[in-house]
Amino acid sequence: MDFAYDDTTEQLRSRLNAFMAEHVLPAEPVYERQAHEGPAWETPPVMEELKREARERGLWNLFLPHGDRGAGLTNLQYAPLAEITGRSPIVAPEALNCSAPDTGNMELLTLFGSEEQQRRWLDPLLAGEIRSAFCMTEPAVASSDARNVATRIVRDGDDYVVEGRKWWISGAMSPRCELLIVMGVTDPDAAEHRRQSMLLVPRDTPGVEILRSSSVLGYDDGPHGGHAEIVFDGARVPASNLLGGQGEGFRIAQERLGPGRIHHAMRAIGIAERSLEALIDRACEREAFGGPIVDQGVVRQWIADARMRIEQTRLLVLKTAWLMDTVGNRGARIEISAIKVAAAELAQWVADKAIQAHGAAGVSQDFPLAQLFAHARILRIADGPDEVHRMAIARREVAARRRAVSEAG
Amino acid sequence: MDFAYDDTTEQLRSRLNAFMAEHVLPAEPVYERQAHEGPAWETPPVMEELKREARERGLWNLFLPHGDRGAGLTNLQYAPLAEITGRSPIVAPEALNCSAPDTGNMELLTLFGSEEQQRRWLDPLLAGEIRSAFCMTEPAVASSDARNVATRIVRDGDDYVVEGRKWWISGAMSPRCELLIVMGVTDPDAAEHRRQSMLLVPRDTPGVEILRSSSVLGYDDGPHGGHAEIVFDGARVPASNLLGGQGEGFRIAQERLGPGRIHHAMRAIGIAERSLEALIDRACEREAFGGPIVDQGVVRQWIADARMRIEQTRLLVLKTAWLMDTVGNRGARIEISAIKVAAAELAQWVADKAIQAHGAAGVSQDFPLAQLFAHARILRIADGPDEVHRMAIARREVAARRRAVSEAG
Amino acid sequence: MDFAYDDTTEQLRSRLNAFMAEHVLPAEPVYERQAHEGPAWETPPVMEELKREARERGLWNLFLPHGDRGAGLTNLQYAPLAEITGRSPIVAPEALNCSAPDTGNMELLTLFGSEEQQRRWLDPLLAGEIRSAFCMTEPAVASSDARNVATRIVRDGDDYVVEGRKWWISGAMSPRCELLIVMGVTDPDAAEHRRQSMLLVPRDTPGVEILRSSSVLGYDDGPHGGHAEIVFDGARVPASNLLGGQGEGFRIAQERLGPGRIHHAMRAIGIAERSLEALIDRACEREAFGGPIVDQGVVRQWIADARMRIEQTRLLVLKTAWLMDTVGNRGARIEISAIKVAAAELAQWVADKAIQAHGAAGVSQDFPLAQLFAHARILRIADGPDEVHRMAIARREVAARRRAVSEAG
Amino acid sequence: MDFAYDDTTEQLRSRLNAFMAEHVLPAEPVYERQAHEGPAWETPPVMEELKREARERGLWNLFLPHGDRGAGLTNLQYAPLAEITGRSPIVAPEALNCSAPDTGNMELLTLFGSEEQQRRWLDPLLAGEIRSAFCMTEPAVASSDARNVATRIVRDGDDYVVEGRKWWISGAMSPRCELLIVMGVTDPDAAEHRRQSMLLVPRDTPGVEILRSSSVLGYDDGPHGGHAEIVFDGARVPASNLLGGQGEGFRIAQERLGPGRIHHAMRAIGIAERSLEALIDRACEREAFGGPIVDQGVVRQWIADARMRIEQTRLLVLKTAWLMDTVGNRGARIEISAIKVAAAELAQWVADKAIQAHGAAGVSQDFPLAQLFAHARILRIADGPDEVHRMAIARREVAARRRAVSEAG
Repeated sequence: MDFAYDDTTEQLRSRLNAFMAEHVLPAEPVYERQAHEGPAWETPPVMEELKREARERGLWNLFLPHGDRGAGLTNLQYAPLAEITGRSPIVAPEALNCSAPDTGNMELLTLFGSEEQQRRWLDPLLAGEIRSAFCMTEPAVASSDARNVATRIVRDGDDYVVEGRKWWISGAMSPRCELLIVMGVTDPDAAEHRRQSMLLVPRDTPGVEILRSSSVLGYDDGPHGGHAEIVFDGARVPASNLLGGQGEGFRIAQERLGPGRIHHAMRAIGIAERSLEALIDRACEREAFGGPIVDQGVVRQWIADARMRIEQTRLLVLKTAWLMDTVGNRGARIEISAIKVAAAELAQWVADKAIQAHGAAGVSQDFPLAQLFAHARILRIADGPDEVHRMAIARREVAARRRAVSEAG
Repeated sequence: MDFAYDDTTEQLRSRLNAFMAEHVLPAEPVYERQAHEGPAWETPPVMEELKREARERGLWNLFLPHGDRGAGLTNLQYAPLAEITGRSPIVAPEALNCSAPDTGNMELLTLFGSEEQQRRWLDPLLAGEIRSAFCMTEPAVASSDARNVATRIVRDGDDYVVEGRKWWISGAMSPRCELLIVMGVTDPDAAEHRRQSMLLVPRDTPGVEILRSSSVLGYDDGPHGGHAEIVFDGARVPASNLLGGQGEGFRIAQERLGPGRIHHAMRAIGIAERSLEALIDRACEREAFGGPIVDQGVVRQWIADARMRIEQTRLLVLKTAWLMDTVGNRGARIEISAIKVAAAELAQWVADKAIQAHGAAGVSQDFPLAQLFAHARILRIADGPDEVHRMAIARREVAARRRAVSEAG
Repeated sequence: MDFAYDDTTEQLRSRLNAFMAEHVLPAEPVYERQAHEGPAWETPPVMEELKREARERGLWNLFLPHGDRGAGLTNLQYAPLAEITGRSPIVAPEALNCSAPDTGNMELLTLFGSEEQQRRWLDPLLAGEIRSAFCMTEPAVASSDARNVATRIVRDGDDYVVEGRKWWISGAMSPRCELLIVMGVTDPDAAEHRRQSMLLVPRDTPGVEILRSSSVLGYDDGPHGGHAEIVFDGARVPASNLLGGQGEGFRIAQERLGPGRIHHAMRAIGIAERSLEALIDRACEREAFGGPIVDQGVVRQWIADARMRIEQTRLLVLKTAWLMDTVGNRGARIEISAIKVAAAELAQWVADKAIQAHGAAGVSQDFPLAQLFAHARILRIADGPDEVHRMAIARREVAARRRAVSEAG
Repeated sequence: MDFAYDDTTEQLRSRLNAFMAEHVLPAEPVYERQAHEGPAWETPPVMEELKREARERGLWNLFLPHGDRGAGLTNLQYAPLAEITGRSPIVAPEALNCSAPDTGNMELLTLFGSEEQQRRWLDPLLAGEIRSAFCMTEPAVASSDARNVATRIVRDGDDYVVEGRKWWISGAMSPRCELLIVMGVTDPDAAEHRRQSMLLVPRDTPGVEILRSSSVLGYDDGPHGGHAEIVFDGARVPASNLLGGQGEGFRIAQERLGPGRIHHAMRAIGIAERSLEALIDRACEREAFGGPIVDQGVVRQWIADARMRIEQTRLLVLKTAWLMDTVGNRGARIEISAIKVAAAELAQWVADKAIQAHGAAGVSQDFPLAQLFAHARILRIADGPDEVHRMAIARREVAARRRAVSEAG
């Protein structure tokens, strides 16, 4: 349970911090302006420059734990790096080719993809040439349970044919998004966990209709490819596009959840840290009632509470990363639920206070705070709402206590 | 201290509820679509239909307590009506010609305008033909104290000339906004409260430069005229455009604050009520873990807490309205601060829980919740941040107690 | 819905405030000392002096709404008076013969007692000569539902015989407590609501064993008669001791709940007000870091929040009192639940902050705050835990909304 | 930053857990009964049995980091052990000779005591034969700053003479308390930090008057020696009783604070863990509305939140212990403030919820919860109120950020 940053981590942190200061933060307003002025759903051109620079600096594909293709970092090594990228959650992760949902998709392709699938999709994804989307959530059912998926994937000769409707498919509005990984039911009569399969569907497949995008508290997340609603109306792909075996969809999806959630949690800490810095900076320069507002007791209390909560949440994230490295994602399941809840709440709380310290400027486009807030807010819902994760934590706690009592008794 | 709704109020409430159900709520998606498809900053055409209908139904200018021009309602009579409009805060208030900042401006013109000024500006405003903006907030200073205003208004022969920069000027992006009421310093050497004056500046005056608009958590509030940043660079108007006397600006501004804040508080209750309804509706229809989520204890707790807080906040708003009617805005000053804080917090809290019950749909454009949330959030900052109002409440409380102790002692 | 204090109320308030200042508050330390030094469970002698004084001042039996025997006040008239007694919740209510559980018992005897029962028990209770206890709660079952009562009351010839165990029987340790009103099952085979009856059992009846007393956060509430655990082991009384008819117990108990809860809520507001005063007084005189701590922003925030919450809760209590007067206890059921929850939380919160402002002195016997805190804490449990009341509020809210939707649809 | 429990720690934990289960927990009711029945302020006899047993099991003086006299554990090794003792905070620490204020006093005597002082006082303290008290807090001044001490210690020939008043001197009511370590001003004209000295004053010295004891939320903490108010009226001791050098008092006091606070924090985690267990146990066995209340969503939410917060707080405590071991108490100063605040709030929160789950039984003497709650509550005040620690955390945070900005700029 050693959470100290090792040499590899420290070197990458220092390299990444420099990259953030020299390139990412200065690029934020450029990115905003290009996004505003350019065509809808397209990636602002400055992103390509950032990606080139990140690659040159050896800050590329850090998320991928598999050393042959990615950086080969453990979760504990990657956590502090993800936190740093979270300070600019719209720009930095993509600049490092470490942004969701591509990260999860690349990991699935690495673990379950055939050689052909990897050549066709994984290589260009790892190279940052294309993007991808993960199609699980559906409008008609509670998506916190993968077993609710209703989309059908039917074998027809040498093909699979997809029928169904998905939404909140992040990134899929982007013209650079070429691959959809679609989860659907192939075996409706099998056991509950064996009904689903994953299919690789090129986005330009006939029968794939991108309807529209959903916004998040007023943000369309356009430059990142939005959050698409997609109808699959007889979309047909070769049977070889199956990812993993038929009936393996649920298991593969589980595989994807742990890393995805801890990455979100890490970045949420970054959101909190940046918000706290912004809060202090503004409070130091803003005068009211005869002095800077940083001297007011209530603002000081916000700062102290933010610092205490950040420290505690970060330690729990690091412990969870360490657990994932040592006992595996399944063994760290409850801790992953805990940080999922705690980090999002923390980030929202600090961003809210930072906004308050900025006054009206805080909710506007002049500061990143409103967007950080919106980002934190959706984290309380994404990958299962907080309430579902709390129930999982309580369930294990009660079961563990009952076991302890009956053993003692 | 009788808060029961009298006959006038009950009749208007019932008429207004019918108008909301039959016209406003159905118009919301139309308004959204027209706003999305139409030119930036223009009022969606459906608004004119709603206004016509509201006038015909006798639901027009309800806010104006002066019976000759407006509805002549007391604050206590108007409060429950404003609450109802708050259920659709983007559409309903304007449909009734009861939306900020026009309401405050119309009241100022009624109280302080010359006959000529009233004919020129008040009449078309009351008729809903034009709109107006109130230019007080400035980027460089804390705006919670009107004495911080730095914009200069200089007498030059028969004219006044304005130099300065304002921002968060709500509504001023709208081409229908023809009048700016500008607060600036005319008498820099006078006593602190006597330095400022108010000036009526037509928006198309040379030297008035509308630079850009600020957004609120991702919403540009475009159809309502946004929140403009404006530079006054030698904008010149006749001296007769002064509103009230020279040096009267601070006093006039104070006059405007009480009603403005209570209107916001009333509408915030409406936001809370609508959010609670949406929460319950969704929770009744959404299934998870074998039943509707409304049966889950945590959701029930949200509902109970929301109801308890709404009841309490509404009663305090009604008491404050009653105080304003009986002892005047100044005498109700502290209660106005209290409801300003309490109602905004309530509205944000209920909207947040309603979003959570909706899952990802809650933050999207498919439900009004995200926009209600953003609206509630800015209320914690607008008209002075919560923290400033809390300090005012505490100041009076401490002073009152000290007085009581010294009298008893 | 007129909450203004009428003339009767104002006169009684002013008389009661004078009595509090001149007699009750000065008597608090005397009461404490006498309680500490005197025999366990006995009423400190100063109480008799206070009672005599209260009677002389016409401040006696104010709680009883029935004019022939009590003050004949409405709930709305009594509420502000109960609030004032709540400022000294250990001493003042009893001094006015308005303390639980005697108040509820006197009301039951007034409503349901035979002439003989009234002569034997009600008259001395109204005269403050004896005290009484209400025996409902049982250790083995959740007491928030009266239908869970397990104690048996069996008819045997001309007698009833009681078998069972009760606890948290407030006041029953006092030698002045002569009457126990016992709820038990007489008709086990009747419908759920018709099984229980109420029986008047003299405390010195053979077979009544007072076992011990329960404490509340370290306070034994000794001078008030503690909270007894009692075994009824064949206690036998004449059949004429039945209160109301056989099988009427549940209905009678319901009758008792509304007033009991609103009295608690009213007094909780008094606890909050006194705590806030103590907070301010201490914060004004205590210096730290170069000035009185009342000048620190965090303390100011506590004061402002306390004031806002007190105002809101008091208004809801007054509205509930008004509802009880106009639509009856049953019609005000949900509002009673709401104030039961809100007032206890408020009182605990303010008392906690007041303690914090006092430092270690705040938890000690030198200030009343720790005992006020303990009193507020038990209110979150007494008469049904907060959680049960929240569920009741949510249930009505959901039902009301469903009805509204189905009517609209 | 390795927080894993090493072998030494694991062995001691397992030994300590066995001792808790086999001896401490069964002794709790005995201790309570003996305390209740025995003479005031005396240690219940069962304590001597527990101490004997603890010594035999090698669970003695674990707190003392100095290996020659104590267990020689690091803070990181001792932390998990202190947590375990916190599960029974009234009984376990003293049973292991690890209870405040003796622990801090023994450490001071170890570090600063002369050989003679150590022989006379330290040896019997380490043997558990006597107890001691630490006299710093004074009624007239804010005690969070040691420089406020007003008690005078005047040199008179070969003696020192003490004049002053102290209160909240924990343990000093106990007849077993033989030593008072008194902080007072010896050099009023020296620099602020050099005015104070520490003096060893036998409790039976003429001029030492023990006046009375302060209670904590109704608990007198009698068996632990209460919290005494003491007047020093010309108490005279030989000059050789000075602890450390004259003028060293402030520095010595600082030395004492770090370990004292982290021990409190560790034990607070133990309070939280035990409260959570009690909550679950009760919720599993208590039925309401057709099932055990542990199945209710709100109770599940409490359990989940408690678990998340405990995990986070424990990690921060461990990090702080590790910092104290590596960079020293001064370097870990801010983290010590943070855990002081966080752990007490956590413990109070969990104990409050556990009480609520128990209903009225939760506040009574039948469960340890009320006393755990009172213990947690005083921790928010002891060793400096939370608010002072928050200000210290904010001060460093703001300073660090300003430095970072100015370095970057």
